[in-house]
Amino acid sequence: MTTQHSTDPIHTAVTVVGLGPMGLALAETLLKQGHPTTVWNRTPEKADGLFAQGAHRAATIADAVAASPLTVVCVKDYEAMYEILDSASLVGRALVNLSSGTPTEAHAAVAWAGERKADYLDGAIMVPPPAVGHPDSVFLYSGSREVFDDHKSTLAALGSPTYLGPDPSLAVLYNTALLDFMYASLNGFLHAAALVGTANVEVAKFAELAIGWFLPAVVGATVLAQAPHLDKGDYPGDQGTMEMNLNALEHIARTSVERNVSSDQPKLMKALAERAIAEGHGGQNYLAVFELLKKPTPSS
Amino acid sequence: MTTQHSTDPIHTAVTVVGLGPMGLALAETLLKQGHPTTVWNRTPEKADGLFAQGAHRAATIADAVAASPLTVVCVKDYEAMYEILDSASLVGRALVNLSSGTPTEAHAAVAWAGERKADYLDGAIMVPPPAVGHPDSVFLYSGSREVFDDHKSTLAALGSPTYLGPDPSLAVLYNTALLDFMYASLNGFLHAAALVGTANVEVAKFAELAIGWFLPAVVGATVLAQAPHLDKGDYPGDQGTMEMNLNALEHIARTSVERNVSSDQPKLMKALAERAIAEGHGGQNYLAVFELLKKPTPSS
Repeated sequence: MTTQHSTDPIHTAVTVVGLGPMGLALAETLLKQGHPTTVWNRTPEKADGLFAQGAHRAATIADAVAASPLTVVCVKDYEAMYEILDSASLVGRALVNLSSGTPTEAHAAVAWAGERKADYLDGAIMVPPPAVGHPDSVFLYSGSREVFDDHKSTLAALGSPTYLGPDPSLAVLYNTALLDFMYASLNGFLHAAALVGTANVEVAKFAELAIGWFLPAVVGATVLAQAPHLDKGDYPGDQGTMEMNLNALEHIARTSVERNVSSDQPKLMKALAERAIAEGHGGQNYLAVFELLKKPTPSS
Repeated sequence: MTTQHSTDPIHTAVTVVGLGPMGLALAETLLKQGHPTTVWNRTPEKADGLFAQGAHRAATIADAVAASPLTVVCVKDYEAMYEILDSASLVGRALVNLSSGTPTEAHAAVAWAGERKADYLDGAIMVPPPAVGHPDSVFLYSGSREVFDDHKSTLAALGSPTYLGPDPSLAVLYNTALLDFMYASLNGFLHAAALVGTANVEVAKFAELAIGWFLPAVVGATVLAQAPHLDKGDYPGDQGTMEMNLNALEHIARTSVERNVSSDQPKLMKALAERAIAEGHGGQNYLAVFELLKKPTPSS
């Protein structure tokens, strides 16, 4: 432990716990931006490359946490964080947890940190490892406003720090929701690329139109225009009804079968529109499926 | 029928068959841009508003087709087009079909038009009715290059005409694929909005981050960067593996159940990643699910 770290007002010392691809990107970014950085990983050899870049070695997790006022944790899940930090004193230390978890786990972590007299902030990283350190890469935080304000300048080294509110579960909930959106969109794109691929259209060529134009100009623009209506449960069908959209979804499912690509995802989308019609949304616009998605899936 | 229409070199006469929300938008746009426009619909009263805007009335479908060198068809499906046009002579007329259908139906329509000595072009509209007429609204066409070239200036009144190639099924295939992508993305967004909605986050606020930043900066950028690798079946896992993504998908499914929103879509996504791992893609990146999506869904 080298005490001069914490006296540098601009480059606060930071400890990074967990050196998977994301933890490595965090540590490398902090080092590059001049923060004295101590690293720790259950498998110590993961840190070897970082020592060559100037990272500090810690013999134990207790030494690692003691080395810096702020410890950033990025491990597999909350359970792994509890196990790893069990033998360290957290008293008076700030802990920022960027591991994946559920809202329930985020709430439990606040209680766990409180018992250990640690200052705790929950967070989530919304970019892949190579984008860590870019000023427009969003990092989400929720819970203690004090910890966020105290360490904002250090957190800004990693990306754009965005505080969502005092509810500690907001960061993981946003993270879960955005990843949910990401996987659905990626699967949708890949399935669409598989469909046009049956006519030997290259993915890169399809992506030009699908990502370069259609996604922002049609999908994004529709959502941004309709978002205020969604909050009111208002789904006017004058520009196209659920019945008309079901017609399109039937085409998609039928074409997927005809072209020998996978069909479970299109069939699920078709079933959702059918259920929306059965529940009385047939004359509303497609976004009325929101009413069904807000409720638990009925068991069939 | 007013023969002077077709002598105007800039504003060719056009007939629009089918006056649902999209057909109405097509006819209104053609009228606004100065094309002599004849309209026809099975339910004639749908055309009343258009007559006030200067549209020409046709007593029969035969008269409607005879009124213009170019007829644009926008009806429920190909079957409806065949039924409606059955009593009209199509000899020497150009027919542009913008109805929804499958690739098989597009091929069949070329044969059908050939028997009737009509020049036929298949097409698809990629924007909602209010965007018809905007110069950046993409209209896709495929099949006869000659019909496309002959009528390109008229088709440009509707939006940006994009010729995909001589295979007549390309336009409906692209259309089906892009709509597939749209529904998957919309469902993903709405499900994500339902998740954050359980913490009283407004859709409009979530959309700012999800659509304003995350969709282009993370999802879009990832696809554009990876598209050339997808064409090669190359899925390097150095920045994150399928196993790590399954971890995230398990969080999403678990959180959906915990927060009482629908869970069938997240469960299907989780099952896809599990199947990818079972098929040997565990160490590759997430986009390797493309290999599964390109094949028929195995029956369970």
